[in-house]
Amino acid sequence: MVKVGIVGGTGYTGVELIRILLGHPQAAIEVITSRSEKGQSLETLFPNLRGSGTDLVFSDIDIGALRRCDVVFFATPNGVAMTMAPELLAAGVKVIDLAADFRIKDRATWERWYGMQHACPQLLEQAVYGLCEVNREVIRGAQLVANPGCYPTAVQLGFLPLLEQQVIAPASLIADAKSGVSGAGRKGETGLLLCETSETFKAYGVAGHRHLPEIVQGLEIAARAAVPLTFVPHLTPMIRGIHATLYADIVRDDVDLQSLFEKRYENETFVDVMPSGSHPETRSVRGVNITRIAVHRPGGGRRVVVLSVIDNLVKGAAGQAVQNMNLMSGLEETLGLTGISILP
Amino acid sequence: MVKVGIVGGTGYTGVELIRILLGHPQAAIEVITSRSEKGQSLETLFPNLRGSGTDLVFSDIDIGALRRCDVVFFATPNGVAMTMAPELLAAGVKVIDLAADFRIKDRATWERWYGMQHACPQLLEQAVYGLCEVNREVIRGAQLVANPGCYPTAVQLGFLPLLEQQVIAPASLIADAKSGVSGAGRKGETGLLLCETSETFKAYGVAGHRHLPEIVQGLEIAARAAVPLTFVPHLTPMIRGIHATLYADIVRDDVDLQSLFEKRYENETFVDVMPSGSHPETRSVRGVNITRIAVHRPGGGRRVVVLSVIDNLVKGAAGQAVQNMNLMSGLEETLGLTGISILP
Amino acid sequence: MVKVGIVGGTGYTGVELIRILLGHPQAAIEVITSRSEKGQSLETLFPNLRGSGTDLVFSDIDIGALRRCDVVFFATPNGVAMTMAPELLAAGVKVIDLAADFRIKDRATWERWYGMQHACPQLLEQAVYGLCEVNREVIRGAQLVANPGCYPTAVQLGFLPLLEQQVIAPASLIADAKSGVSGAGRKGETGLLLCETSETFKAYGVAGHRHLPEIVQGLEIAARAAVPLTFVPHLTPMIRGIHATLYADIVRDDVDLQSLFEKRYENETFVDVMPSGSHPETRSVRGVNITRIAVHRPGGGRRVVVLSVIDNLVKGAAGQAVQNMNLMSGLEETLGLTGISILP
Amino acid sequence: MVKVGIVGGTGYTGVELIRILLGHPQAAIEVITSRSEKGQSLETLFPNLRGSGTDLVFSDIDIGALRRCDVVFFATPNGVAMTMAPELLAAGVKVIDLAADFRIKDRATWERWYGMQHACPQLLEQAVYGLCEVNREVIRGAQLVANPGCYPTAVQLGFLPLLEQQVIAPASLIADAKSGVSGAGRKGETGLLLCETSETFKAYGVAGHRHLPEIVQGLEIAARAAVPLTFVPHLTPMIRGIHATLYADIVRDDVDLQSLFEKRYENETFVDVMPSGSHPETRSVRGVNITRIAVHRPGGGRRVVVLSVIDNLVKGAAGQAVQNMNLMSGLEETLGLTGISILP
Repeated sequence: MVKVGIVGGTGYTGVELIRILLGHPQAAIEVITSRSEKGQSLETLFPNLRGSGTDLVFSDIDIGALRRCDVVFFATPNGVAMTMAPELLAAGVKVIDLAADFRIKDRATWERWYGMQHACPQLLEQAVYGLCEVNREVIRGAQLVANPGCYPTAVQLGFLPLLEQQVIAPASLIADAKSGVSGAGRKGETGLLLCETSETFKAYGVAGHRHLPEIVQGLEIAARAAVPLTFVPHLTPMIRGIHATLYADIVRDDVDLQSLFEKRYENETFVDVMPSGSHPETRSVRGVNITRIAVHRPGGGRRVVVLSVIDNLVKGAAGQAVQNMNLMSGLEETLGLTGISILP
Repeated sequence: MVKVGIVGGTGYTGVELIRILLGHPQAAIEVITSRSEKGQSLETLFPNLRGSGTDLVFSDIDIGALRRCDVVFFATPNGVAMTMAPELLAAGVKVIDLAADFRIKDRATWERWYGMQHACPQLLEQAVYGLCEVNREVIRGAQLVANPGCYPTAVQLGFLPLLEQQVIAPASLIADAKSGVSGAGRKGETGLLLCETSETFKAYGVAGHRHLPEIVQGLEIAARAAVPLTFVPHLTPMIRGIHATLYADIVRDDVDLQSLFEKRYENETFVDVMPSGSHPETRSVRGVNITRIAVHRPGGGRRVVVLSVIDNLVKGAAGQAVQNMNLMSGLEETLGLTGISILP
Repeated sequence: MVKVGIVGGTGYTGVELIRILLGHPQAAIEVITSRSEKGQSLETLFPNLRGSGTDLVFSDIDIGALRRCDVVFFATPNGVAMTMAPELLAAGVKVIDLAADFRIKDRATWERWYGMQHACPQLLEQAVYGLCEVNREVIRGAQLVANPGCYPTAVQLGFLPLLEQQVIAPASLIADAKSGVSGAGRKGETGLLLCETSETFKAYGVAGHRHLPEIVQGLEIAARAAVPLTFVPHLTPMIRGIHATLYADIVRDDVDLQSLFEKRYENETFVDVMPSGSHPETRSVRGVNITRIAVHRPGGGRRVVVLSVIDNLVKGAAGQAVQNMNLMSGLEETLGLTGISILP
Repeated sequence: MVKVGIVGGTGYTGVELIRILLGHPQAAIEVITSRSEKGQSLETLFPNLRGSGTDLVFSDIDIGALRRCDVVFFATPNGVAMTMAPELLAAGVKVIDLAADFRIKDRATWERWYGMQHACPQLLEQAVYGLCEVNREVIRGAQLVANPGCYPTAVQLGFLPLLEQQVIAPASLIADAKSGVSGAGRKGETGLLLCETSETFKAYGVAGHRHLPEIVQGLEIAARAAVPLTFVPHLTPMIRGIHATLYADIVRDDVDLQSLFEKRYENETFVDVMPSGSHPETRSVRGVNITRIAVHRPGGGRRVVVLSVIDNLVKGAAGQAVQNMNLMSGLEETLGLTGISILP
């Protein structure tokens, strides 16, 4: 049994992490902390957990209790994990940060995009980027994993096969991404009200979004070249789901795109390459840890279009974090992650 | 292993039944039939089932295959189960009808509300109304179960404790019920389009809804009195969920309402009596087989208000059907029904 | 031309008031104040106003500028209007409060429900309750109008014909009301996020809602009797609209209910009594100042069911406020209020 | 007064056309036809029209009545207008087709994409493409106008300034477009149900959409070059609105993009070039005839990103049709089209 601690856990990635872990056959949540909700039971804050058999209560930060865990997840805002990770790592605890503290290898880049000083830059090298379909073997041995962002997961998994095989021109990439509102978190902000976000659609952050350097870092490793990605995120009037529509110019004509994707992901449980001509819907992955991908070449032209969908809170956050925990703990990678999406 | 057949299965209760049974440790779907979709794989029609390990294909009606099953579910429109049930029952198959063919004991009443002749009125007596919290022991021995309607489940479970103990005046009952759009099924009707049902709210069927006689039948058994219920259903701009707001006049002052409900349901896994003062949300039961109930007495007056929520496709249909299957098959009642609702 | 001032105006009733007044042929907004947004142009905060021909800018509170107006609207939280109204009234300005400061005649009741001391109880007597269909003639001569709340408008207009003619038993009234989320205002509260309010339905405030004493006050005047109303509000996953489902016991059998309603409202432009058997939808009044009402007697029984829908931001707030302004200013009552709802 | 006839009118563009024309000071609907709804009053089918002062009734097709009109709108499926237009044109009636019959100049292209023979190819030359911001002067003298499609309107208005001034490489264009569900019409199709389209997002028609040749035709005229556009439409869980996110490679560095757009549209009432850095929302144009556009150059790179939003039923259909009618009838272009969008 893996003893789990959760720091944070009152946001949407937190409650999703709790839900997945409560159904996990080899994990037990030992402690869950929240400054704002300390003393409150999980099921009071999240009535969906009533009857799930847990009597957990949010506690104040208790580094001692966290040190007794095997794995500690940070489901906190950016900038929290980096202040506590060193002590936990020193105590032999495995740490998985669902925020961005350890995602960017270059300290200066991180500090510029996140607007703060990094508290433990010496750990950036050691931290492993937790995109399992790329770094599986390294993750197995990692003690500190940076769980990927939601957009980065959907975009990278869609572009990787093409970049790894030099099928597309690195300078031509565009990622037009659409996210449900839960991607912005559980914050009392006017801009996230139902009255401001339903029955409307808009782009945001066109001038620059924090996920851009994270995506570019991953794509450049795959491409072994500079990738000046154009990335435009949009807010969609729904709760969950990311749909990334990816565009690039084809530079190799000897490759069957469908086969390329099927082969790249043939052993990946959590990447579903759909039949040729498909249009994956975000709801088909709601609540599950799957990325569904379809690849198109409209009109047989020079441009490839990849459609990649995930649940931003699962494969884009809590589910992938548990996938990482499984790998780091020597467990079956799919443990606790095999539910079926509800439809409709 | 219970061998299961499903007739129908292309509608919303059907796909939900498939989802639950695929995760059930003691059931195996042997055959699933659909005239309109025969030859098509489940996962083509319902992409959420991709990767769930099933290679089932919709077949044409095959009474022989169905006769080899232990349990056959009818997830069909009203009027289908009654034409096939006799033959299956004769072959020793257990039958659970998710439609309304066997819900009403009085043939004339049924024929008036459903506008057709009953094909096997001789079975009406034998059929057991599958509201487990009322008829558990009879269901265990039943061969033919009429799975309750969605509104009837939410309304009856909310009123039962009060009626059984004669706490309320039978002539005073009002059920103001609100349903998500999936309650109307997966039909290509203009009135169910997103453009007709989102961003709006309306009542329907105020003059008379088919679930009225079903509810009244159950309430009258509990009350041992006539119950001239006023029942007003409404269409709510969401996919899943029923919220029944129930009103009645209190006639006994010696009863603590909260205790009454807690006691009535203390051994019921699937009925959650919430703490005093609660307001259950439909999303707290999305995808799960639970009824959450709160009981109020506003201003300490003469009127009781009960709030009762279910997922119309689970406790109001497929989940309750599996609960019935478990009982009828001698299995643990909760098997396959213990998932946690996703939130948000 | 009526010179108009608006205090507040950054919330949903405020922007709706601005929209209506910009299209009003006999009104001109002279000043609009907001502490939080001072200096910002209207169209920056509300892009829908771009191109509407206004160059208005939110100013800080400027009592001098407000005193030069003919009419000042308060689109502010409860408790603001009462601190400024006396000075404006003394200067001869007409005041319309869209909040609750002057709605309740009984000071103690108001202070108990609103949790604060009233700043000018001496004005409570003079203030006219601005439900035009009841108080039209008094409103024409009023200097201070309390614009009715959204629920109170829908509920009162639905019950009034029945109470005025003693058709129903005053002790039997139930109002089951459903509101879109905009009724809760434009506040950065977690509970109003899209992720918390879409795809779910719930009751709230069953123990007591501030609109209850306001509704009861109006119903009791009509009934000339005590009306111990049961009022249960619900939150519906949509932006605009209120649907009140009203129940009462019939005590007079000599009255044709349809005719009663048609006759009561035959000269009311903004109350549409629909044909017998109708189910009004909230979207049919989206953006317009109309109440649509249908009256039912299910099964020909002892209970009447009235369905009453409004747009909470128009007939339930800004539209009714302009209707009041028209009356108070000697203008045609319907001026600026004759648009058609968009559908879908 | 322009005497107007409408053929069709029971779909979403139809009811929107009716709404706009009922508020138009110089137009009067004389006849409206619908085979399926003949004999029914407008307000029965569309309750939002109750009280709008119309007593119009859908009539069967009556070519005589249509010939007595000044302008006839076809709000019909593709393939209807072409069968009736010749006779009306011969009678001197002006014809505006809201469907696609006359949008494509090349008959073979049209027949391939629309899968039918054209009934009057001889009119294709004469028909004027009704994108007022491009063809205003020709429209003034036109007798037959092909009202542009919704996607084509949003995409063309976003790309035109860049193509006309050769600022972008014609081979580089990508249009990633998102539409509300009303764009698919008022049809009883399973795929358009609320339960199939809310809480999900997907692309469709990636292999080829009928609006592609229409868009390309317009862009190529502007570019005076071949434009091998990549066009990917998506379905968004909302009723109204199109958001086109447009990408292209910049080939001229001497042009200030913001100024280019502002100058191109400085005299266009219905195109609003937003301030630099803006992200237009679809709701800001809901119900109005405006296109809002913002132009971005992320990171100062080689790629331009244009955001273009319209209401698909107004500027993308009925509103633009009335704009065309105004021009063709010698009226002020903005007549009847100056309402303000409601928010929220």
